[in-house]
Amino acid sequence: MTTQAVIDLLGLLAYGELSSFEQMAADAQKAPTLPDKAAMSNFASGEFEHYKQITSRLKSLGIDPVEAMKPFAGALDAYHQQLVPSNWLEGLVKSYIGEGIASDFYREVSKFLDKETAELVEEVLSDNGFADFAIERIRQASENDAIMAGRLALWGRRMMGEMIAQAALVAKERMTLAQLFISNEPGVSIADDLNGLVNRLTVGHARRMDVLGFAS
Amino acid sequence: MTTQAVIDLLGLLAYGELSSFEQMAADAQKAPTLPDKAAMSNFASGEFEHYKQITSRLKSLGIDPVEAMKPFAGALDAYHQQLVPSNWLEGLVKSYIGEGIASDFYREVSKFLDKETAELVEEVLSDNGFADFAIERIRQASENDAIMAGRLALWGRRMMGEMIAQAALVAKERMTLAQLFISNEPGVSIADDLNGLVNRLTVGHARRMDVLGFAS
Repeated sequence: MTTQAVIDLLGLLAYGELSSFEQMAADAQKAPTLPDKAAMSNFASGEFEHYKQITSRLKSLGIDPVEAMKPFAGALDAYHQQLVPSNWLEGLVKSYIGEGIASDFYREVSKFLDKETAELVEEVLSDNGFADFAIERIRQASENDAIMAGRLALWGRRMMGEMIAQAALVAKERMTLAQLFISNEPGVSIADDLNGLVNRLTVGHARRMDVLGFAS
Repeated sequence: MTTQAVIDLLGLLAYGELSSFEQMAADAQKAPTLPDKAAMSNFASGEFEHYKQITSRLKSLGIDPVEAMKPFAGALDAYHQQLVPSNWLEGLVKSYIGEGIASDFYREVSKFLDKETAELVEEVLSDNGFADFAIERIRQASENDAIMAGRLALWGRRMMGEMIAQAALVAKERMTLAQLFISNEPGVSIADDLNGLVNRLTVGHARRMDVLGFAS
């Protein structure tokens, strides 16, 4: 594991948290009630706190956070631009499903990180109550409305495809980062490693879709 | 001064900070560079911290923040919906001009508040560097571009009108709040008090427009 790989991972994670902050703040504007708006703003603010923790860590390593984030801004912006929620519920599904896949990915990668970085990653990924908040509202809205459930399920399925598409672009551009999930075991090709990773992420994704009552 | 007036003021201020948080987070998405995006997200997060301080204070007074904010949500939402910035610079002008008018208003009202509440209000209104950040970028964009300068000036002038329109609606609905800026001096009518307040706010507004290089 190279230091550049850790910097890349922290840069990606930092920009991911910054993007989630913006996404959740935009979702707060669409909240149907004032308590939901306040709760969603609080979740958004939590993402920004994570962003600050990661950028502090980068600074303590002598790294400019902007430089560390820059290589990943394009791919993450493209992901978010491809998936602009058109309403409150789509926003909840996007964040629940997207954060879930991202968390699984970072946890996979954590195995290869130094202890201090791994603990930071674990801390910023820890659930702050958003998952339960989202699940409750999504299930409630879709359990008696098959059309709504169908639309949200379709929307949820798009996350995985877009995320793999952008991740493939990032991995191609940043081999340093890709090294984090390449095992270098004899007889295992890079393609095998990547397929294994995608398969494991897909299992987690299917489980979360199932929690929402959706087929994946 | 009644306790209800203080609760109203804190409710208005809390919802104002929550709305500013959302506005600034939306503006961060439009930032032209990654450092500007990070800075703007940081300013947005600061607004949310203020919101948390105010709602904590309401809770310590035994008041549900949602109930305190509710009477003002409609007017503030209408204000923001009337003035959706179409780009990064309009967002900066809106926040700089809007926060300025709002700060002047709360400082006027602070004179009538108990010491503890007045200190909290002063603290959440204290400048966190956003004004300088906005002024620099707005001036830079408009000093060599007369058409841009004209557009932004027109946009800036709309803030004052919209704010007075919404404030008049709020004052009419919430006489408890209006009491905070009614002097009850002999020979001074409520209309005189309100005119005096609007005149003083207009002076501050003109000064800020001038700082940006715009005619008000």
